[in-house]
This record gives sequence, C-alpha cells and structure tokens, in this order.
Amino acid sequence: MAKPIFVLSGPNLNLLGTREPEIYGKTTLKDIHDSLTRQAAKSQVDLVCFQSNMEGDLVNWIQQAGQEGQAIIINAGAYTHTSIAIADAIRSIDIPVIEVHLSNIYQREEYRHHSYISPLAKGLICGFGAKSYELALQVLLFEAQNG
Amino acid sequence: MAKPIFVLSGPNLNLLGTREPEIYGKTTLKDIHDSLTRQAAKSQVDLVCFQSNMEGDLVNWIQQAGQEGQAIIINAGAYTHTSIAIADAIRSIDIPVIEVHLSNIYQREEYRHHSYISPLAKGLICGFGAKSYELALQVLLFEAQNG
Amino acid sequence: MAKPIFVLSGPNLNLLGTREPEIYGKTTLKDIHDSLTRQAAKSQVDLVCFQSNMEGDLVNWIQQAGQEGQAIIINAGAYTHTSIAIADAIRSIDIPVIEVHLSNIYQREEYRHHSYISPLAKGLICGFGAKSYELALQVLLFEAQNG
Amino acid sequence: MAKPIFVLSGPNLNLLGTREPEIYGKTTLKDIHDSLTRQAAKSQVDLVCFQSNMEGDLVNWIQQAGQEGQAIIINAGAYTHTSIAIADAIRSIDIPVIEVHLSNIYQREEYRHHSYISPLAKGLICGFGAKSYELALQVLLFEAQNG
Amino acid sequence: MAKPIFVLSGPNLNLLGTREPEIYGKTTLKDIHDSLTRQAAKSQVDLVCFQSNMEGDLVNWIQQAGQEGQAIIINAGAYTHTSIAIADAIRSIDIPVIEVHLSNIYQREEYRHHSYISPLAKGLICGFGAKSYELALQVLLFEAQNG
Amino acid sequence: MAKPIFVLSGPNLNLLGTREPEIYGKTTLKDIHDSLTRQAAKSQVDLVCFQSNMEGDLVNWIQQAGQEGQAIIINAGAYTHTSIAIADAIRSIDIPVIEVHLSNIYQREEYRHHSYISPLAKGLICGFGAKSYELALQVLLFEAQNG
Amino acid sequence: MAKPIFVLSGPNLNLLGTREPEIYGKTTLKDIHDSLTRQAAKSQVDLVCFQSNMEGDLVNWIQQAGQEGQAIIINAGAYTHTSIAIADAIRSIDIPVIEVHLSNIYQREEYRHHSYISPLAKGLICGFGAKSYELALQVLLFEAQNG
Amino acid sequence: MAKPIFVLSGPNLNLLGTREPEIYGKTTLKDIHDSLTRQAAKSQVDLVCFQSNMEGDLVNWIQQAGQEGQAIIINAGAYTHTSIAIADAIRSIDIPVIEVHLSNIYQREEYRHHSYISPLAKGLICGFGAKSYELALQVLLFEAQNG
Amino acid sequence: MAKPIFVLSGPNLNLLGTREPEIYGKTTLKDIHDSLTRQAAKSQVDLVCFQSNMEGDLVNWIQQAGQEGQAIIINAGAYTHTSIAIADAIRSIDIPVIEVHLSNIYQREEYRHHSYISPLAKGLICGFGAKSYELALQVLLFEAQNG
Amino acid sequence: MAKPIFVLSGPNLNLLGTREPEIYGKTTLKDIHDSLTRQAAKSQVDLVCFQSNMEGDLVNWIQQAGQEGQAIIINAGAYTHTSIAIADAIRSIDIPVIEVHLSNIYQREEYRHHSYISPLAKGLICGFGAKSYELALQVLLFEAQNG
Amino acid sequence: MAKPIFVLSGPNLNLLGTREPEIYGKTTLKDIHDSLTRQAAKSQVDLVCFQSNMEGDLVNWIQQAGQEGQAIIINAGAYTHTSIAIADAIRSIDIPVIEVHLSNIYQREEYRHHSYISPLAKGLICGFGAKSYELALQVLLFEAQNG
Amino acid sequence: MAKPIFVLSGPNLNLLGTREPEIYGKTTLKDIHDSLTRQAAKSQVDLVCFQSNMEGDLVNWIQQAGQEGQAIIINAGAYTHTSIAIADAIRSIDIPVIEVHLSNIYQREEYRHHSYISPLAKGLICGFGAKSYELALQVLLFEAQNG
Repeated sequence: MAKPIFVLSGPNLNLLGTREPEIYGKTTLKDIHDSLTRQAAKSQVDLVCFQSNMEGDLVNWIQQAGQEGQAIIINAGAYTHTSIAIADAIRSIDIPVIEVHLSNIYQREEYRHHSYISPLAKGLICGFGAKSYELALQVLLFEAQNG
Repeated sequence: MAKPIFVLSGPNLNLLGTREPEIYGKTTLKDIHDSLTRQAAKSQVDLVCFQSNMEGDLVNWIQQAGQEGQAIIINAGAYTHTSIAIADAIRSIDIPVIEVHLSNIYQREEYRHHSYISPLAKGLICGFGAKSYELALQVLLFEAQNG
Repeated sequence: MAKPIFVLSGPNLNLLGTREPEIYGKTTLKDIHDSLTRQAAKSQVDLVCFQSNMEGDLVNWIQQAGQEGQAIIINAGAYTHTSIAIADAIRSIDIPVIEVHLSNIYQREEYRHHSYISPLAKGLICGFGAKSYELALQVLLFEAQNG
Repeated sequence: MAKPIFVLSGPNLNLLGTREPEIYGKTTLKDIHDSLTRQAAKSQVDLVCFQSNMEGDLVNWIQQAGQEGQAIIINAGAYTHTSIAIADAIRSIDIPVIEVHLSNIYQREEYRHHSYISPLAKGLICGFGAKSYELALQVLLFEAQNG
Repeated sequence: MAKPIFVLSGPNLNLLGTREPEIYGKTTLKDIHDSLTRQAAKSQVDLVCFQSNMEGDLVNWIQQAGQEGQAIIINAGAYTHTSIAIADAIRSIDIPVIEVHLSNIYQREEYRHHSYISPLAKGLICGFGAKSYELALQVLLFEAQNG
Repeated sequence: MAKPIFVLSGPNLNLLGTREPEIYGKTTLKDIHDSLTRQAAKSQVDLVCFQSNMEGDLVNWIQQAGQEGQAIIINAGAYTHTSIAIADAIRSIDIPVIEVHLSNIYQREEYRHHSYISPLAKGLICGFGAKSYELALQVLLFEAQNG
Repeated sequence: MAKPIFVLSGPNLNLLGTREPEIYGKTTLKDIHDSLTRQAAKSQVDLVCFQSNMEGDLVNWIQQAGQEGQAIIINAGAYTHTSIAIADAIRSIDIPVIEVHLSNIYQREEYRHHSYISPLAKGLICGFGAKSYELALQVLLFEAQNG
Repeated sequence: MAKPIFVLSGPNLNLLGTREPEIYGKTTLKDIHDSLTRQAAKSQVDLVCFQSNMEGDLVNWIQQAGQEGQAIIINAGAYTHTSIAIADAIRSIDIPVIEVHLSNIYQREEYRHHSYISPLAKGLICGFGAKSYELALQVLLFEAQNG
Repeated sequence: MAKPIFVLSGPNLNLLGTREPEIYGKTTLKDIHDSLTRQAAKSQVDLVCFQSNMEGDLVNWIQQAGQEGQAIIINAGAYTHTSIAIADAIRSIDIPVIEVHLSNIYQREEYRHHSYISPLAKGLICGFGAKSYELALQVLLFEAQNG
Repeated sequence: MAKPIFVLSGPNLNLLGTREPEIYGKTTLKDIHDSLTRQAAKSQVDLVCFQSNMEGDLVNWIQQAGQEGQAIIINAGAYTHTSIAIADAIRSIDIPVIEVHLSNIYQREEYRHHSYISPLAKGLICGFGAKSYELALQVLLFEAQNG
Repeated sequence: MAKPIFVLSGPNLNLLGTREPEIYGKTTLKDIHDSLTRQAAKSQVDLVCFQSNMEGDLVNWIQQAGQEGQAIIINAGAYTHTSIAIADAIRSIDIPVIEVHLSNIYQREEYRHHSYISPLAKGLICGFGAKSYELALQVLLFEAQNG
Repeated sequence: MAKPIFVLSGPNLNLLGTREPEIYGKTTLKDIHDSLTRQAAKSQVDLVCFQSNMEGDLVNWIQQAGQEGQAIIINAGAYTHTSIAIADAIRSIDIPVIEVHLSNIYQREEYRHHSYISPLAKGLICGFGAKSYELALQVLLFEAQNG
C-alpha cells in the first residue's frame, strides 16, 4: 500500500482559530487535518498529521517521514525563518516537501520574508488560509497518480 | 454575466516550452492558456490571456483588468523583481491578484528572491510549473462560487 | 517664437483622479494639463503634455524635448526610482528639468526615497498634488522672463 | 486676526549671500525675509522669521509656532540630516510644515540625501535658491485662502 | 549560408555623436553600423543592427537572434544595470553574446558597475568607443572561421 | 479570584547564582521566585513560576498564560534574541507582558541588543539583577489595583 | 547630608501632557517632578529636576551632577539616539545613571532603537509612562539605603 | 577517578551514515562513539556520548558536563549557527570545549560560516569526517596527561 | 597686525585633567591654552581660545574666525562625529583648519572613527595629548612665516 | 624609435596552460608573449613582457613602464582585486593602461567582480582567453598609428 | 619514494616564541619544524618547511608543492585573510591542503574570521598552538597509509 | 648609545616629487630623509630610512626595528589600507610607532579612510606633506628627552 503523506505544523499553529482571526480565520488546525484527511481518502492515501511547538519535534518527524512517508506538507511557522536544523532534516531525506503558510508572509514583518525551507522545497503556497494546505495536498495527490 | 479573469504573463514567457526545459518543462504558454480556459469554462468563467515582453503592456493590462475583470493571475517574470510600475498598477485596482511562478524562485539567483508584487497579492504559488497557474485559477473559481 | 515646455508623466498617472484618491485627490491628469496650459498661455508659452506607461516613451520624449523644447517638468512615477535610462536621457540634453511628484514620496515606501532623476534636476517639488506641477511651471515661466 | 506663518532657518544660513555664492547666490537671509514679508502682506498674513545655529532654538521655535502660528516654512540646514529633536518637535504640533532648501540636496554629499523632516512635512521644495521659500509661502497663502 | 550576427544597442545610443561627446566621441550609431557591416562583409557575414529605447524591444530581438542569428554583440546601455528581463532573454538562447560599452563603465557612477549581462556573456569589452564594437566583431568573425 | 501572574525564565537561568556571578550576582532563581511570591501575596495575587532551557516550553507556557493568567513577566534569556516562535506566542495572547533582564543587555555582545520580544512588550526593565523582576511585578500589581 | 539625585529630561519633554497624549498620557513634566520629589522626600533625599531642548544643557547638567549629585535619572529624549556628547559626559562621571523613557522605544521608529546612553547606564526602564521615572527613583533610593 | 569527557552531537547527526554520504561518509554516530570510547579507554578516561535534535537537550547536557565532566567535544550541527542558548551554556561552565564538524563548514552555505560556539571554544577542528572527533579527543587526552 | 589663530574645543573638554586621566592625562584645558599662547607669542601671533558644550557655539565661533582669524585649530570632541552643522561652518570659510584630538580616536569606539571635519581640514593630528594642539600650532606658525 | 609596450602578468599566470584548463585553456604565458611579440613586430613596436607572483614586482614594473614605455597591458591576476599599491602605481604614470583577463571575471566568485585597476584603465577586455591580450595590443597599435 | 609534505608558514611566524607569548606560547617555529620532522620520519615521510613574510613566496612554494609534494600544511598568517593570490595558487594544484592556525582566530578581531583558504582546504585546525600543526600532519600521515 | 629611529615608507613613495605633485609636492623622499636626519642629529639620534614597494620588506623592517630601534615613523602608503601582515608586525613589537601620511587621506577615496595601522599606532599625523614626518620625529625626540 502507498506510504502516507505527512502534514507537519510548527509553533503556535495549535492556536489556529483562536488567535489573530483577522489574519488566520476561525478554522482550527483539527478542522484542517480532518478536511485534508477526507480529501486524501478519496485517493486512498493516508495522512499523518502532527503539530508541535518544539523545533526538535519537527526535526524528528521530518526524519520519520523520510523513512515512512511519500511526501511532506509543512507549515513550520516561526521556525521557517530561524531553523537551519529543520532545513538540514529536509536536506537529509529524499521525498518531496511542499512549504505552505496560511497568511501571505510577504505582507508581514521583514524577518518573515526569508525562509530556510523554500530553497529545499518543491514549491511554495501561501496566503490562502487553510486552502494553502489543500492546494499542496492536491498537487501531491495529482503527482502520485500521474507522475 | 461574470467579469473575466485576466491571466497575464511577462517577459520571455512566450518562449515557454523551448527555453531551459530542465527548469520549465515542455508545455507552451498557449498550452497553459488553453488548459486554463477549459478549466474556467466549466465554471462559466471567461479568461483573458495576455503575454508581453514590455513592462508598460503589463501596466496597461492590469489597469484594464481593474476596469473589466474580476481577478488577475500574474506571472510577471523578470519584472516581478524590478518593476515598481507594475506594483503601482496593482495597487491602483480593487480586484484580487494571485502571483504565480513556474519555477521555485527561491532556488534561483538571489535577485529573484524579492518580489515587488508579493506584498500586494492575495497569495503566492510557485514551483509547480504550469500547475502553478491552475491552482491559482482554482482558488479564484472556488472563491467566486463560495465567497 | 519661444520653444514649448514639455510636461511628461509616467506610469499609472493616467489613472489620476480614480486611484487612491485619499493620496492623490480627484483631479485627473487632463485637468492638470488643461490648467497648466492656461497658466502658460498667459506668458505666451506653449506646453506639450504627454503621459505613458512605457519607460521607453519617456526616454523618447525627453530626447525630443532636448531638441524642440525649452524645459521639462517631469513626474516619472515609479520609473523615478528604477530607470537609469530616463536619467541618461536627461543627462544627454541641455535644457532645465524640474522633478515633481504629487505625493510626498518620503512618506511612502523606502524604495520611493531614492530618485535617479533628482541629482540631474534643477530642483524638486513634491507633496502638493497638482499644485506641484503648477509651482514648477511658475519657476520656469519666471526664469524665462527674468533669467 | 490670522495667526502668523513662521519662517525658520537653521545653522550657517545667517551667512547667506557671503558663503559659496556659486551654490547659494548673493541674496542674504534678510533679503529673503523682507521679500517674503512683502509677499505675505499682500494676503494680510504676518510672518515671524528666525534663524539660529542652535538646534535647541529651532526646537523651541517650532514648539512656539505650534502654539501661535498657522504654518511653518523650515530650512533646517545641516540639522535636517541629524536632528531627531527637531523632527520630534514637528511631530508634536498640528500645523502644516513645508521643508525647503536653497540648493538641490540630492546633488550634494550622500549624507545630505536623508532628511528627518521630510516624512513629517506636507511637502518639499528644493533647488530654487530663495525662490524655494517663496514657492512654499505661495502654497500656504493659497491654502489659507482656498483650503 | 551563415546566419547573421545581431548588433543590438539600447536606450539613448540613438543620440550617439550628439550627446556628451567628451565621453562618447562624435561617431554616430549609424557610422558604427556602417563600419561594422563593411568589416563583416569581408568575411561574408551579414549583420542585423537594431537600436531601441524600449527594454522589451531588446528582449524581442535577443529572442529573434536566438532563432535566426549566429551571435550577438550587445550594448544594452542603461538597461545593462537594471534589466533582468534582458538577462533572461540571453539565458534562453544558445548563441554567444559579447557585451560592449563605449565608455569605461567602471569610471562612472557606482550603479553602472554592476551588469546583469556580464555573467551570461562570453566576454566584455569596454572603454574603447566605437572600437569596442569592432573588437567584439573581430572575435566573433575569428571564431566563426577558426572555431 | 484574580488570575495568577506568570513569571517565565528561559535557558541557563536555572544556573543563576552559580554562573558568572560578577555579572549576575549570587541570588538563585528560586530565591527570586520566593521573593516575588511573597511580594505578590501581599496583594492577594498568585504567581506561577517556570524555567526551561527549551524554546518550545516557553511557547507552551505563554499560550497557557494567555488562557489562565492575568499577565506575564518574562526573561527569555538567549531566546530573546533568536526566537520568533516565542514572539508569535506573545502576539497570540491578550494579556500584558513585561520583558526583564538581569544584566544590562546593551553592555554586552552586539547580538544581544536586538529583542524579538521588546516590540510586543508593554515595557522593558533591565540591568537591576533580581530587582528587575521585582519592579516588573510592582508595575503589574499597581495596575491591577489602579488600572 | 546626602547629595541630591538629578532628574534630567531632554528635548520636547516640556510639552509632556499636551503632545500625542495617546502615546504619552496627560501628565505634565511638572507633575512628574512633583511626584518624584514627594517620593524622594520620604527618604530624605533631595531632587534636582531640569529639562532643556539644548543638547549642551544636558552635557552641562550631567557634569554638574557628577560634582554635586549622587545619581542621575535621565530621559534624554531624541538626544538619546544622536548625542555622543551626552554619552561622553556620562562617561566622565562616577555616579550611577539610570536611563528612562516614557514610551517603549522599541515599538517606534527603527532609529529610536539605538541609544548611546544604554551601554553606559546602570539599567534601562521604558514603556511605563511617568512610572518609568518612579521605578528608577525607587531603585536609587533602595540602593542608597541598602547598598 | 578522572571525570569523564562529554561528547555531544546536535540535530540530524543521528542520521549519520545514511544522509548525504558524499559529504559525511558511511560511518554512523554509534561507530564514532564506539571508536572514541576505545581510544579514551586506553588512557583510562570515560566518555559520555549524547545526541539530540533538541536545542534545550544540548543546553542541559552542557550544564551537566560543567558539573560532572572534565571537558566537552561538541558538534552542535545546525545549532552551531543559530543558538545563543548553547553558547550561553558553554559560557557558564569552566571546562574546556572543543568544537568539531565532520564537513568543512566553510565550503558550504554562507550561513554556516558563522559559529556562536567558536569564540568560546578552545579550538576548532573541521573537515576530517569522524576523524575530527578523534583529533579533538587526542588533544584532550594529551592535555589531561601533560597539562 | 596679523589676525589671531582660533583654538576651539568642544563638549566635555572643559573637564580635561579631571576625567579619565588614564586616557587624557592631568593637564587642564586652561593649561593647554596658556602653553599655546606662550608658544604663539614668540611668533607675535595672538590666540583666541574658546570651549563650549554647545554645538551652536562652535558654529558661531568658526564663522567668527572666518571673519577675524587667520586659522583654526579645532578639537570638536564628540561633535566631530555627529555635526554636519560644524562641517558646514568650516566649509563656509576660507582660512585653514587643523583637526586635533588628544587621544587616538582610532583606538576607541567604532563610531569615533568617522569625522565630518577631516575631509575639510588641512590635516589631522591625534593621539599625542596636549602635544596634538602644539604640533598643529607649530604647523600654522611655520606656514605663516614661510608660506 | 618608439618606446616599447609593457605586458605585465600577475600571480599564478606562470602556471597558464597547466592549471584549470577548462577555464584558461592550454596556451602557456610564453606562447602568449611570443604571439604578441610577433604581432607587435609587424608594427615595429617592441614588447617587454614580465610575470611575477610578487605584488611589489608589478609596482616596480609599472613605475618602470611609466619611464620607458608607451603603454601597458596588464593582467594583474588576483592582485586586481586586492592591491591598492598597484592601482597607485598606475595612478602615478601618464601612459595608457589596458586591463585584460583571460576568463570572464564576472562569472566567477563575487570577490573577483571588483577591480582596483578598472577605474584607472583606458578600457577592459575579459573573457577571450589569450585573445584578450591580442585585442588590447591591437587597440594600442592602432592608436599608436592613428592617434 | 613518497613525495614530501610541505609545511608553509606566513608573515610574522618567524617571530614565534618571542611575540605575544600569552597568545602564541614560547615554542619557536624551528621547534615546530623539528618536532614535525621527527614525527614524519617515523612514517618515512620527508618534510619541506618554509616561512616567509612575502605573499609571493607563499604563492611560489604552493606552486612548487603542487609539482613536488604530496600535501601541504599551511599557516598563512595574516595573508589568510587578505590574499586571493595564495588562494589561487591552492586552487591551481591537486594535492590536499590543511589550514592551521596557532590561535583560535574566531576569538580575535572580526577581520580574522574570514579566510580565503578555508573553502579550498581539506579541513581546518586552529586554537591548539604548535599542536595544530601536529594534528594536521597526523591526518596526512594517516591518510597516506590508509587512503 | 641610543637606538636609532626607523623611518619606513611603503609603495610608490620612491616616486615622491615626480608623481601627482598637486597632491604631494615636489620634495623627493631622499630630501625628506636628509632633512629628518639633520633634525635627529641635533638630538644625537640616528635614523634608519627605508622604502620599498614590497609588503614583506616592510614586515621585515618593522621586525628589525623592534630589535634594534627605539621607535618607528611609518608611512605605509597603500599597504596602510590592505595589510594585516604589517599590522601584525607592529603588534609584535614593543616600541612606539607613529603613522604619517603626506596627504589628508580623508579627502581621498573611501577605501583610504580605513587604516589597519591606526589602532596600533601611538598617534596619527596626516595632511602636511613632508612636514608630517617632521612633526612625528619631533614628538619622538621630545619624548626621548622628556619621557
């Protein structure tokens, strides 16, 4: 059977739906995970969804995904801009990684404009709220079937 | 009837399918326009597709879209990184703009990492080849129906 | 008879009166041209008024003004900050050039604070809306009579 | 009766007419003050004209103008580029301020290209010698009558 | 028969022979084109000579040269320093490109010291006036015969 | 009953009283917690005091404080200068945060002069050793009673 | 008898209570001086309170305090960010100096984030309005009694 | 008996022998630990070998080593370049620290050229694969016997 | 009779002989003035010696020296590094100016390495304590006799 | 008789033909010198050809050429980018200097993009291998005959 | 027989043992050379040891080592940070180079933190005094036997 | 007998009196050496005067002076701005060094404003032509007699 897709979310994304709703909307991270799982199930693909506020957890899960998964959708939150360790973990694996962000990071603080992950990702989708995750999943499912 | 969506492409994108295929693939810009048009037609939405190597043409079309269109999908190519005039044109209109790129611009030269358009766009999709345009269209069609 | 004064306006200024009125007001560019023409006529001076979204058009007109005109009032819009070609055109002619801007460019984005034109211009007037053009014309008419 | 307009000039402008005449001309600051006063008198507006080499004097007079004046024309000379204290004084008052310079500061040393005053001023006029002051006064008189 | 060599010149070079003769001399661009054509004719090579003030024209001609020409000699003038679009056009073709400048760009303003074209060109020749073009042509003719 | 105030301390502060006493003194973190608790008790306010070397723990506790606390006193130690994740956690909550440091961070290495927390904090107190915490607590208690 | 504590305030702080009350509140500088004097009197300590818009006055008073005072509380206003002369005066004396600011300077313009005084001060307190002064006084009184 | 030497390895080093073998070789971290332990045993010195993907774990172990160990060999991986917390932990202890890297970090990305650890370490050894650790151990054993 | 030489000293130099003697020695500014006056008297030259903590006083005295003096020896202290106003005053006069410093400013803080005065001065002498002034005077006296 | 042309080559150019042939080709420096000498002989011009790995030798030869030669062709190799001493030597002489490089230095490391020599040279030719020298010689011979 | 290993030392290292002993110790360079020679002799490897204060000598010896040696141990002293010529020499040869420094260069001035040699070296060892050389030799001897 | 004073001059100073006389005057280096020798002889002090275009020669002579001399007067010419090796040589000796320049280096190119020698020198004298050397000698003779 096909390996699962890992959906990894970083610090403060557990607050989704409660914090700064004018930027991030009211959908919770669980809502997103549920919706993605239903979408993937239609293509007989399993998802593994994790969130943590710990940089090291993301490193661990990326390593695990490299062993057990077929692809990663990652929203590393603030660690996007500061973590070379996460970038190194991505560099160490051979499966495609798509970087997503809920908000358009280029409309925010200068220090959010640089991502250690982007140069290592297959592509980047940002600014569409929860739909950023869905578009990423759609690319991966499409490629799994056609690629 | 609904206003059309404008699909605008900038310099050198007329060469698509012939130039640097290891980066951009073999699909031509006409292929992309045809595919997008079929996709939009399913939702009864018309597309207006333009390409030019002239910065000023893009300024003109963005102004025109602001009058006659419901949204813009723009791949401004190299002008993404140098044109404040295009950014000003986007700033002057009230319809949503989605920025797309075929390649992952963050894997390329340093000077392609900054975009004058990103801070003004609803969102950014890059790295998925022709599919970058399709995902952008999908977001716009979805919002047109649900938003 | 005296040579005319050229009044040149750059990208997106054709939208004047419709775009971001809280910054630029409701006067159209044609209104400005008409008002300036009347003002100049009192001193028996003709005006030649052009606007374009094309960088190259501005280069052409500056060259033309260098042949046929006595002075230039220029609001190069976004090209102020990016066009060395326009600066070179100004550098190649021998008539006075006054740089104007409707808004106070120093209250806006950092990248609008540098002008390739300023070091080549006789002077700079910005922040007074359409009146910026009028003050520039007044200087030129005064000098034509007194200088 | 209408409040007066303050005309404030900073360090070394007391030397006007004697120093570097190839840049600044032969008109003295008193000549300028007299000419402006006559111009304002035609509109029944009083002027208050001050010059000092002391940064603190300019801070004091801006505060005073905020209480007793209707507007300020300021040529802060070298303090334009170094004084946050003067900028703070301008920030603390509610009347319009127009920044003027005799010379085109963008043709001079790099360190004269930044002004702490510009982002706080209504507008900027530079490069026209004594006429820079006159144009500023004209804007203020016009607005006083029409605004 | 052999494909022609394209000789492309950018903004303000149409003024050659009239503008800043102390830097550029009195030879016109047509003089240069004629001289180069005679030189090439001796080797049975045709030249195609274009000049434009429009960035997009240069992009178009480079694309055309990539189809129809054997090599390009380009003096992109001010666009040398600002145009990624022209650089992208060069990147998209497979024929050799030699960058030339009439003046020694390293003796002029700081912003003329960077060229987007240099890293993509076979070589660079600058500072010898019209002879810069001739030396470039000579290299290409030599290589066509010996390479 | 009133919600407690959270007192959060970051990496290496568990060593307080043993490390670099010439900078930080001999008081241990437990001494500080005890002293603060006594001080708060006089105003019938509870304290929750945590320390961790883990960036993610601080993110978690800030989120928890946002739910259960009335205010935060935070000395994020080295994470002050590197953690956008902690800053995002603070941004996500609605209670006041006071930033404290034992030493005067502006007397130390350049990289300690920037804080991601300062722009989000109500205020900053640094340089007074354990008394930095006490002054912060005093402000919060005062405001709780008077605000 | 004990030497007095000097409370020194810089440019525009004489406007306190009237200017930008949304940032600085309605308390005047005299209110602050009175309140501090009462607080100090309880510990039998005299205060000497000065304000000036002149950089040199602050230099003079710091020198005087070095002779006649036991400590300084200084809010140098805009001179905080520009005056090496004030920093040198502090460097020349042997009594403790506490830097205070009414607002959180790290929430304001970039150029307010650097202070020439901070590396020379015992500590920094900012963001608490008039209470910033009071906390500083409290530290000094405490140390006078306990140190 | 002599205190042990701590051998600490940071994020992604658990993958050693599997990831990017062209850079890091096929030796696993366990192989290195075993080899080092044998080498140390010859000098009757114990080793304590730890690896973690968590920044905070490294902080903890460095603190522990400061209490229980005689020296540290540290390869902090990506945290080398981002962690002030680890640097602070090293700063807080009194035993020698040697920084090692498997690869030559100066041949890799720019952001790997700066280390927060180097200025605090006794010395640096990089570029020799597993042998980097061995050389470091050899220095420490030599000094333990001779120093 | 010959015009006098002006000896101007800036902020905090009135403290000379009392402050930081390990850097500046025990000689007072009055000692220096007296010594210089005796030295000049031997050549029948008068000195005018001033010191102030006010930037504007230095501007005034430089202007005065331009009228009444034959040369200036200036130690502008901290204003050396921050005052464009003083530099402008020097620029406005036609007599030679020698810049002196007691200490070697290149051994001190980075921000003391730039001087607005140096590019305008005849020469610079620093690092020799009071002797820096004497050497400057000697140059001026020599030139007065020989030049 | 005419003075000779000096052909000066800097460090590591003695290895030409052996080192990095994919960049520099197989021609040795002696081959180049011989070829140039034959070419010059046709115009009755002597060449003086030197190479050294010593910066000071190049300074010496440039001084010598200033006395005894009519022009210099210089490929200063790595000293191009680091030697102000060589630039000063060129500045001290009155004969034309042409800078050449075998490779296109703008396609190589960032630190090779700046040349201390370019602003002082008549012109620059790079990227054509040994032919770079020949083109330079051709310019000099042409000018010697025509200029 | 095996080719020798070259041990090259740069400027001021001839002073070793006499200069700044608190940083460099009392061992002379001859002591180091003798010790290394004995160590190498055990493996039947000859050493060639050179020191010079001349940049060009180091270039020469690196070229010679490329012809006659099997490897280089280099301590280029101050030229490490300024010499592209030495880096080019290393780039031109095919034998391994190990960079060593006696002191930990990352604890010293900022300008010693960049090395032109590091990106070209097999590895870097610094901070261990004379032992830095010995460790480098050990690596080379080990590889000669095992590699 | 007293040790001699070394007078060391760097690249291109051998040309003194012939090159750029508008900057450096007509005095030759030999004239300066003779004049200084006469001046020193009056105090029974010998001079050792050297000039070289080789960086390494200056390093050698500084080392020699450290052994045999009582002080150094150095004008390192262009090496002032590029040579860490010379700075290291100065750092390695214990005798006073005075840095001199003929011209005012702060009136020349930006890259001449930084000196590696200044932070190590006793003091700096520049801008007085040959008299710069004389003043330096005078300081040293004075201190030899009085110090």
